[in-house]
Amino acid sequence: MGVNIKPLSDRVLVEPMAAETKTASGLYIPETAKEKPQQGKVVAVGSGKKDHEMTVKVGDTVLYGKYSGTELKLEGTDYLMMREDDILAII
Amino acid sequence: MGVNIKPLSDRVLVEPMAAETKTASGLYIPETAKEKPQQGKVVAVGSGKKDHEMTVKVGDTVLYGKYSGTELKLEGTDYLMMREDDILAII
Amino acid sequence: MGVNIKPLSDRVLVEPMAAETKTASGLYIPETAKEKPQQGKVVAVGSGKKDHEMTVKVGDTVLYGKYSGTELKLEGTDYLMMREDDILAII
Amino acid sequence: MGVNIKPLSDRVLVEPMAAETKTASGLYIPETAKEKPQQGKVVAVGSGKKDHEMTVKVGDTVLYGKYSGTELKLEGTDYLMMREDDILAII
Amino acid sequence: MGVNIKPLSDRVLVEPMAAETKTASGLYIPETAKEKPQQGKVVAVGSGKKDHEMTVKVGDTVLYGKYSGTELKLEGTDYLMMREDDILAII
Amino acid sequence: MGVNIKPLSDRVLVEPMAAETKTASGLYIPETAKEKPQQGKVVAVGSGKKDHEMTVKVGDTVLYGKYSGTELKLEGTDYLMMREDDILAII
Amino acid sequence: MGVNIKPLSDRVLVEPMAAETKTASGLYIPETAKEKPQQGKVVAVGSGKKDHEMTVKVGDTVLYGKYSGTELKLEGTDYLMMREDDILAII
Repeated sequence: MGVNIKPLSDRVLVEPMAAETKTASGLYIPETAKEKPQQGKVVAVGSGKKDHEMTVKVGDTVLYGKYSGTELKLEGTDYLMMREDDILAII
Repeated sequence: MGVNIKPLSDRVLVEPMAAETKTASGLYIPETAKEKPQQGKVVAVGSGKKDHEMTVKVGDTVLYGKYSGTELKLEGTDYLMMREDDILAII
Repeated sequence: MGVNIKPLSDRVLVEPMAAETKTASGLYIPETAKEKPQQGKVVAVGSGKKDHEMTVKVGDTVLYGKYSGTELKLEGTDYLMMREDDILAII
Repeated sequence: MGVNIKPLSDRVLVEPMAAETKTASGLYIPETAKEKPQQGKVVAVGSGKKDHEMTVKVGDTVLYGKYSGTELKLEGTDYLMMREDDILAII
Repeated sequence: MGVNIKPLSDRVLVEPMAAETKTASGLYIPETAKEKPQQGKVVAVGSGKKDHEMTVKVGDTVLYGKYSGTELKLEGTDYLMMREDDILAII
Repeated sequence: MGVNIKPLSDRVLVEPMAAETKTASGLYIPETAKEKPQQGKVVAVGSGKKDHEMTVKVGDTVLYGKYSGTELKLEGTDYLMMREDDILAII
Repeated sequence: MGVNIKPLSDRVLVEPMAAETKTASGLYIPETAKEKPQQGKVVAVGSGKKDHEMTVKVGDTVLYGKYSGTELKLEGTDYLMMREDDILAII
């Protein structure tokens, strides 16, 4: 988890989990949904904006929409950089 | 109702009821309406935003527009994650 | 008028009157108007928003644009759920 | 002028005058203008909005753009319901 | 200059000058410019808005974009009603 | 530099320099850039807006985007009137 | 690094690095990403806006979206002028 990156503003760096993976509470994303939510692990969090205090923390498992964020790759791992507002929920 | 999920911001997790079901007060949604409202049970509620205090509570029965929210599935049950502003009324 | 429904935010539930009906003051809506205003009875009122205090009250007769609101049906009666800003006037 | 109607928010009810009519000061609207301004008499005025105090008063003669407002008819007279911001000037 | 008209909000009534006219300082508008600025005399000024205090005064000569404002005609003279923000400069 | 013109609001009057000219620090604009920045001399500055205090001063050399501003001509010299936000940098 | 340029408002001047370059922490941008992030060195920083205090500093290595900013060339080196909000992260 030692990713050396500082997201700006209200951005969050997320390491996606496989969409088929079931969480402890059994939540998963339906295949047929038009805009399929995804889940991932929060890896880095920006310091927010004047009118937006950050809610998610490093280590949180989060749900987000399928086309949210910009893909990054770090030492072989794929990440997504997104705005916190693209995150639907902490699970 | 023990859904282990924390919606972010002004989002609400709703468990939809069958559209044909009549409520105690007899309210139901017309088949022919162009944008058919739906009803469901509130299962989880976000903590709101700086300028948006949440109104709905877990357990409320709510009406919402047909295409509101993002579908989620949890242990066999379908849910909808939507913003509180997509909810029309508490019934 | 015992409709058991609580509109959210700045929404208003209206029971439409027949468009041809003349009010006491003789006001009616022209057939040829491109966006024909309609009139109805206010049946339920939301609690407003931070920057929007509600003006209409239950029992008010109101005018609104033709395509305003979402249709609901309750025990055989048609209602319209709209935002107060869709209401043109109290008559 | 006893029109029994209360415009909501920053709306104004205007009784249009014939476009060809010259005012006392001789002002009239050119036939060839692409968006022809019109003039009328203010018949009813809303109570404004939090950030919009009303300027026009009942009895004012006002200029407004040609396609402003929604047509209403009251006991044989045509009216226009518009937002105060659609009014260009008091003459 | 005795034009009996009170522009609303942040509007300004301008009497256009011929586009070819050179000002005292020699400023004129190029024929080939895609959006040709124009100049005119300020004839009447609105009282502004909550967040917009008026800058131009009656008698100022101003520059404005070619398609700014709504045409009015008063006793044979053409005027333009525009928002102050459509005025580029006082010359 | 005695241009007798007062830009309104957050506008700036700029006298463009030849795009090929190299500045003292050697900065110039590439020919192939899709939106080529340009440079010029600030000739007149507006007094700003409530939420926008002006930064550039008369005499500053500034960079701005190619299609920024409205062309003006004054005694044989071409000027550009633009909003300060169209200015990229002071060089 | 002695670039003699002062970005306005919330703008940042960035000297792009080759997209294939791996950072110390091994981060690089995938070839196949639709909107490929890029990295560069911050060379000059604006003084911000009323509601936007600057976060990046001269010398920071930053990630940004592929089509962010306006190209500038200074003594043979290519730069990008962008708004800080176009910067995804400091690495």
